Amino acid sequence: MNDLTPTYRFAPAFQAPTGSAIRELFKYLAQPGMISFAGGYPATGFFDQANLQLAADRALRESPVDCLQYAATEGLPLLREQLTALMARRGAQVDVADLLVTTGSQQGLDLLIKVLLSPGDQVLVERPTYPAALQALRLAGMQVHSAATDAQGLDTDALAERLAGLPHGAIRLLYCVPTFANPTGACLSLERRLALLALAARHDFLIIEDDPYGALRFAGSELPSLLALSEQVEGARGRVVHLSSLSKVVAPGLRIGWLIAPPAVFTRCVIAKQTVDLCTSPWAQRIGALYLQEGALERALPGLAQGYGAKCQRMLEGLSGLQEVLEVSPPAGGMFIWGRCRHGVDAATLLQRAIKQNVLFVPGSAFYAQEADASSIRLSFAAPSLEQIDEGLLRLGRAFG
Amino acid sequence: MNDLTPTYRFAPAFQAPTGSAIRELFKYLAQPGMISFAGGYPATGFFDQANLQLAADRALRESPVDCLQYAATEGLPLLREQLTALMARRGAQVDVADLLVTTGSQQGLDLLIKVLLSPGDQVLVERPTYPAALQALRLAGMQVHSAATDAQGLDTDALAERLAGLPHGAIRLLYCVPTFANPTGACLSLERRLALLALAARHDFLIIEDDPYGALRFAGSELPSLLALSEQVEGARGRVVHLSSLSKVVAPGLRIGWLIAPPAVFTRCVIAKQTVDLCTSPWAQRIGALYLQEGALERALPGLAQGYGAKCQRMLEGLSGLQEVLEVSPPAGGMFIWGRCRHGVDAATLLQRAIKQNVLFVPGSAFYAQEADASSIRLSFAAPSLEQIDEGLLRLGRAFG
Repeated sequence: MNDLTPTYRFAPAFQAPTGSAIRELFKYLAQPGMISFAGGYPATGFFDQANLQLAADRALRESPVDCLQYAATEGLPLLREQLTALMARRGAQVDVADLLVTTGSQQGLDLLIKVLLSPGDQVLVERPTYPAALQALRLAGMQVHSAATDAQGLDTDALAERLAGLPHGAIRLLYCVPTFANPTGACLSLERRLALLALAARHDFLIIEDDPYGALRFAGSELPSLLALSEQVEGARGRVVHLSSLSKVVAPGLRIGWLIAPPAVFTRCVIAKQTVDLCTSPWAQRIGALYLQEGALERALPGLAQGYGAKCQRMLEGLSGLQEVLEVSPPAGGMFIWGRCRHGVDAATLLQRAIKQNVLFVPGSAFYAQEADASSIRLSFAAPSLEQIDEGLLRLGRAFG
Repeated sequence: MNDLTPTYRFAPAFQAPTGSAIRELFKYLAQPGMISFAGGYPATGFFDQANLQLAADRALRESPVDCLQYAATEGLPLLREQLTALMARRGAQVDVADLLVTTGSQQGLDLLIKVLLSPGDQVLVERPTYPAALQALRLAGMQVHSAATDAQGLDTDALAERLAGLPHGAIRLLYCVPTFANPTGACLSLERRLALLALAARHDFLIIEDDPYGALRFAGSELPSLLALSEQVEGARGRVVHLSSLSKVVAPGLRIGWLIAPPAVFTRCVIAKQTVDLCTSPWAQRIGALYLQEGALERALPGLAQGYGAKCQRMLEGLSGLQEVLEVSPPAGGMFIWGRCRHGVDAATLLQRAIKQNVLFVPGSAFYAQEADASSIRLSFAAPSLEQIDEGLLRLGRAFG
């Protein structure tokens, strides 16, 4: 008599939601001998375990109450100072008061959606774009449009034309990963960065600059962030909200990201965070702060960039043997190589054959807001070893048949 | 020329939001010699630092990759098992598959709002209720109504009458803290628990049972949770979502909570969490899991309950000297004593006088969805020492004048 499950009522976007296509692939990771180019996971071999251990030992022994008690929603002062100093080394002068510690940079996006947008608002993402951003915007009920990209990132000329055809202020915000994009690996050129900022000023939209990978450059020379450049472009100041994270350069397990926003946006994000998780784990914050204060990240970064560069190089070498079937663009940093299958090969079909060969990648369709390019694929060189990259690409070649 | 700050557009609830009234009081904590009965912070002296240190040392040394890498959104298997065992000790038989690890129980509520509700939906909270729940519901655009309570918690007779006057299904969910409520300290009687579950079945609403304090009982005998009882009440099965947390019994700094929900709700919460923070810090999860696996929480709990019981007793003794001006209800657990000033004394005015006497409490108005009782105050006995409780109450007495 008590077996009747109630009929649940859900929010409209959660009536029949689909989970992450990438996480759906995880089940195949258990297949013995599987080589994965699928996840965007950092290499476990690159974790700076010794220095993290030192920071962790110090954190609890020296300041147990700071680690174990609730902390201010804005973040631990020491971590905010260290992250501000990190931003200065990256060329952006930021006030500590404008930097909010978040539970991974994913939370930064969640807070911004809460604070800035209402269901039905029109937003822009890159085509293709980071799936968890796309999903977050969709589940919040946004109308997500995508802006064309090429090997230099967002095509700002095409974007200018498109915006000119819309009513002023129609687009509320644009989300982008300008430096070593996920999934394309593209880095937006300086000229286009300036053009994008001018468009934001002219058409009255905010830019969310998500920058988890920018510090992992292994070729070419550094470019200023949109945040740094926004000071130089007329009317662009205060139009960039910057997100970054320790996940790709230190460890995802800390779940430490940060958000830099103009005061009116910042204050509201803090209020939103009070209802979301009160504060990011103070213990993890303390460990991250001490790790940074010791200079451990600065010492580790050159090796990290070199290590990922070597893996990327190895993957590009292997892919050169597949150039008859797969076209790729070499990235100058980050964790991803984006490819397009030639001869009309469908990536979803290829994936099924690849799984039989014991190699995984992500079919590109997961990265499109609409009209997916079914021939595209994303390969990550970050997690596998050099030997696994070689062997995995041999298997991928066999999957092409 | 570049000095113009853009005019930002915000989501309706964030046009002019107000932050937490309790957090507004934090600035006075810096006042030298201040004694605070304001926060809901656990006693720092009760943190089981030695065993947490052991768990932390083991976590990173034994399983560095599990700590540092991304983890499944659902949570670490070991922690989910340990929390399921903890729930069994609390009298609720829960399947591991129905337990989601959250970044504090505050995140559980945030996920449920995303998944279950749409702006304008009608929800019920207790009168008075936990302010961060109230704020989360309001910022998400809900119509929040409050249901009367007395010293036994929710008045289910009054609730039954009220629901009878509403269209069937008008109320989407009811959020409550049935065991040692924040702010009242009230514990819902068994009879009322059963009545509440029957009402949920009859009027087709979900109950969010938030239970951070239930393990901190220092008087009376244990009552089954709404979750456990929902199996016994016709039509109530699957209508309770249970939230709990390690914050009050282990340490807030871990930011570890959990959510137990029927499969249809659970699955959607996982999808929502993928866009919110991907996963709760695996490092903190691992520490929490090892701490539980060692049996450290079970060993610590009797001392914790006794410790908070002694503080509560001390505060009640001190308050007996103020009974001419302040009426209070003695709680059987938790961290709070709720009071009403006699003779029409206004709590906000009293607070200003109390601050001059170097003692803090929270005026009750922060806890009401509407029509606040301006004479009510919340006193927490958890964080101050016994001596601070004595001295703080002398000061409070002087504030009454």
